[in-house]
Amino acid sequence: MELNDYLNTYVEYRKKMKALHLAFFLLSWDSSTVAPKGCFEARGENVAVLSQMEYELTTAKEFTDAVAYLYDNRDKLDEITSHEIEVLKENVDKQLKIPVEEVMEAAKLFSVSNNIWVEAKQTNDFNKFKDCLEKIVAYERRYVKYLETDKLKGYDILLDEYERGMTTKEYDQFFDCLKEKLVPFVKKVLAKGNNFDDSFMKKKYPADKQKEVCEYFRDVMCFDKNKGIMMESEHPFTSGFGTDDVRITVHYYEKMFTSSIFSCIHETGHATYEANVDKKLNETFSGGGASMALHESQSRFYENIIGRDENFWKAHFNKLKEVYKTQLKDVDLNTFIREVNKVEASYVRTEADELTYPLHIMLRYDIEKKLISGELEVKDAPKEWNRLFKEYFGLKVKKDSEGILQDVHWSQGSFGYFPTYALGSAYGAQFLNAMKKDLDYEKEISKDNLKTINEWLREHIHKYGASKYPKEIIKIATGEDFNPNYYVDYLINKYSKIYNIK
Amino acid sequence: MELNDYLNTYVEYRKKMKALHLAFFLLSWDSSTVAPKGCFEARGENVAVLSQMEYELTTAKEFTDAVAYLYDNRDKLDEITSHEIEVLKENVDKQLKIPVEEVMEAAKLFSVSNNIWVEAKQTNDFNKFKDCLEKIVAYERRYVKYLETDKLKGYDILLDEYERGMTTKEYDQFFDCLKEKLVPFVKKVLAKGNNFDDSFMKKKYPADKQKEVCEYFRDVMCFDKNKGIMMESEHPFTSGFGTDDVRITVHYYEKMFTSSIFSCIHETGHATYEANVDKKLNETFSGGGASMALHESQSRFYENIIGRDENFWKAHFNKLKEVYKTQLKDVDLNTFIREVNKVEASYVRTEADELTYPLHIMLRYDIEKKLISGELEVKDAPKEWNRLFKEYFGLKVKKDSEGILQDVHWSQGSFGYFPTYALGSAYGAQFLNAMKKDLDYEKEISKDNLKTINEWLREHIHKYGASKYPKEIIKIATGEDFNPNYYVDYLINKYSKIYNIK
Repeated sequence: MELNDYLNTYVEYRKKMKALHLAFFLLSWDSSTVAPKGCFEARGENVAVLSQMEYELTTAKEFTDAVAYLYDNRDKLDEITSHEIEVLKENVDKQLKIPVEEVMEAAKLFSVSNNIWVEAKQTNDFNKFKDCLEKIVAYERRYVKYLETDKLKGYDILLDEYERGMTTKEYDQFFDCLKEKLVPFVKKVLAKGNNFDDSFMKKKYPADKQKEVCEYFRDVMCFDKNKGIMMESEHPFTSGFGTDDVRITVHYYEKMFTSSIFSCIHETGHATYEANVDKKLNETFSGGGASMALHESQSRFYENIIGRDENFWKAHFNKLKEVYKTQLKDVDLNTFIREVNKVEASYVRTEADELTYPLHIMLRYDIEKKLISGELEVKDAPKEWNRLFKEYFGLKVKKDSEGILQDVHWSQGSFGYFPTYALGSAYGAQFLNAMKKDLDYEKEISKDNLKTINEWLREHIHKYGASKYPKEIIKIATGEDFNPNYYVDYLINKYSKIYNIK
Repeated sequence: MELNDYLNTYVEYRKKMKALHLAFFLLSWDSSTVAPKGCFEARGENVAVLSQMEYELTTAKEFTDAVAYLYDNRDKLDEITSHEIEVLKENVDKQLKIPVEEVMEAAKLFSVSNNIWVEAKQTNDFNKFKDCLEKIVAYERRYVKYLETDKLKGYDILLDEYERGMTTKEYDQFFDCLKEKLVPFVKKVLAKGNNFDDSFMKKKYPADKQKEVCEYFRDVMCFDKNKGIMMESEHPFTSGFGTDDVRITVHYYEKMFTSSIFSCIHETGHATYEANVDKKLNETFSGGGASMALHESQSRFYENIIGRDENFWKAHFNKLKEVYKTQLKDVDLNTFIREVNKVEASYVRTEADELTYPLHIMLRYDIEKKLISGELEVKDAPKEWNRLFKEYFGLKVKKDSEGILQDVHWSQGSFGYFPTYALGSAYGAQFLNAMKKDLDYEKEISKDNLKTINEWLREHIHKYGASKYPKEIIKIATGEDFNPNYYVDYLINKYSKIYNIK
């Protein structure tokens, strides 16, 4: 057997795995959008079998032999394949450590858990979700046990999965840095309060009008409708399969009209990243984003850095006034800018402002760390959530649907995901700094559309997909390693101006 | 190896195939509803790989050995498994005759062909579809060559696939019988003409109102929303995976409001059949309907026999008047009944009346027979279509979108399917005759809902799924073999009254 034989074997297996991934992509999309509730039980069984089929492929001796050989000879491979094999070898080594029964059990669990969570959240009843979450946490604890090494243990294994190289050590440092500089600043801002007329926010904004506005912003962001669709679901998300099928969902709250605008811009940010990946990566495992934090850096760059900038709204506020003639009749641009950058202590992470947002993440990080270590049990988690919330925000949680039940992530077993949101925001601020050296940022975001900015992000970040490690991409895009000071400086500068803090 | 070992092997393979079927079900559903156009090229490749995976399973020696052993020992199996093995053995034997390259090529072809057809139909341009249809017909001709036996050749192979035991010999007899008695009767009816005010049909009926009406009839038919959904697509269809996930689509033409009513009732008829199958058949290959004609017998029973009956509309016409207040203000029940049973020569099969419908099928049957035999080529097919249309209906086809491009079937390679529509109608009339012996049919269809009728159909037909041959089910349900005279008598009686023909 020569290099090319192994490579052919590898490509044959990859094709089958990619085809199964298409099935998983559609199953997940369908389950979160239109699937009838009655189908989930039977579907769970079938998803488990498909997972078993994927497992059989990834653990087939023929495949693992090919990966091992290619790994040892990766200096002879092209750069993209070499990177892919390196990442895969780690994953194959990991996957071999998880017993097949666990994999099937997990697939079954996660095929029904989302629906149980939706039901619990809708009825504001944590008890409906408790048993399910216990099973999930028990699974996560077993999962990290299977994977522990001398270097990585417990929660660190999950953190590293979402952002390679980031563990509790790095995250503790990152959050400590934010706490030191931002927490006192947030206190100053909250003390200032918000003295402006925000009564327009309490008006009713019909769902069909919100849909029109979301479609408008999708066009402002130049998202190609031929490559994706937008639908409704309980929790907004982006789901993609290659560069030519990228789907987003939003949720229209008639009494919170800015929510769908910013979640649409956020999800379209994710979608733009996926769609801008070099097309040749479609047939590889290196399509999509390079990491969770890099993905969030893009969505939050569009949502917060651009989407809440005064210059951006100078170009688009008239569109809102046109669609919501009666509701926004007496509202001027300044008031609107003030509103979408309003800082306050609030319950729901997805509705939180840019400045207090990291506090929501710190809380989840803390709970996840304790749940995985066993320091905290699921039954005590709502109490702990509410205790920490009081400590960070000074507010008493009134209902679990606005507390521990608010996020979809844990129902999908996504422990270790949340911290990447804060990290992503920090990456974004560093990209902004680099971008400003290459183009007239203020001018670009004042235009009808974001074509030039998309192009910069495509060229410096998106096109690489996952064919490089996040650290490499940050170095390429900004010329330096990750530095959280850009984020802190950006936030303090921006909100000092808005809140008139010297 | 003993019987139980072979049975276990069989069940393990079946599980994997069923899981792949779930993937195919969702791929097809998604492609026909929301998928972005840009994704189809890449999707085609992946669907081909999934088909290859299914092919590898169905042709694996371990599996075919198990099937062969179980087939030889099927007297030792339970009745359901025995039937399943018998059907499967035939299919496995057939599938082994098709080279894997052909299977993959076909999967690729059919993953893009639907979209090409939609585009051609929308732009009324047969040339856009011609190359694709040529490829499909060439494939069908090769396909029947691979499968020919001493008993079955050419088009007969396709006919037998959709309705076991029906070949050109039986269909020629069936259509000859209809031609002999019905064609002269249709001429009498057409000569009578339609002298009533149908101006309400030309009014505009908004899509959202039509949706409300469709949802109402879905409830009249007692369809469980927990087990299915209703969406929009170019051509209405039903798609199911087991008893708990049955999906229908409709299309709302604002200038043809009865179209969506009857296609909703029709598709919900298919869906009711699927949902009423005994749940224990879900994990087998014997779920769903027993044959295409039996499926159509159910959809057309609901659509035509019940859905166009005066007594049915006595119960539901007021709902229509309530929803379409202005449009139906001056329309009375008798006019409406007359309208929905109006006989006329028309272009579009799916909009054709109950009486002339079989003529549309005869035309397609004739063209299919010639296309498969090679007597007719695709490039000449529109001309032949138009010639036959003139002969049967006395009308000149003005555009291909209302001629040869009107149906989705050929774009999916479904040759041999059309004749089952006429056969299904004939089965339906025979079921009606049997049902009337057990219940007060006129009374039941005058009720708010069709619960009792559903129950009769469930008990006598639906529950068996595909665990028996169609001929067996007809015998069980009606106590006799198929007899086309019930159909002819039903049509002549019904339309003699409506058109006052002695």
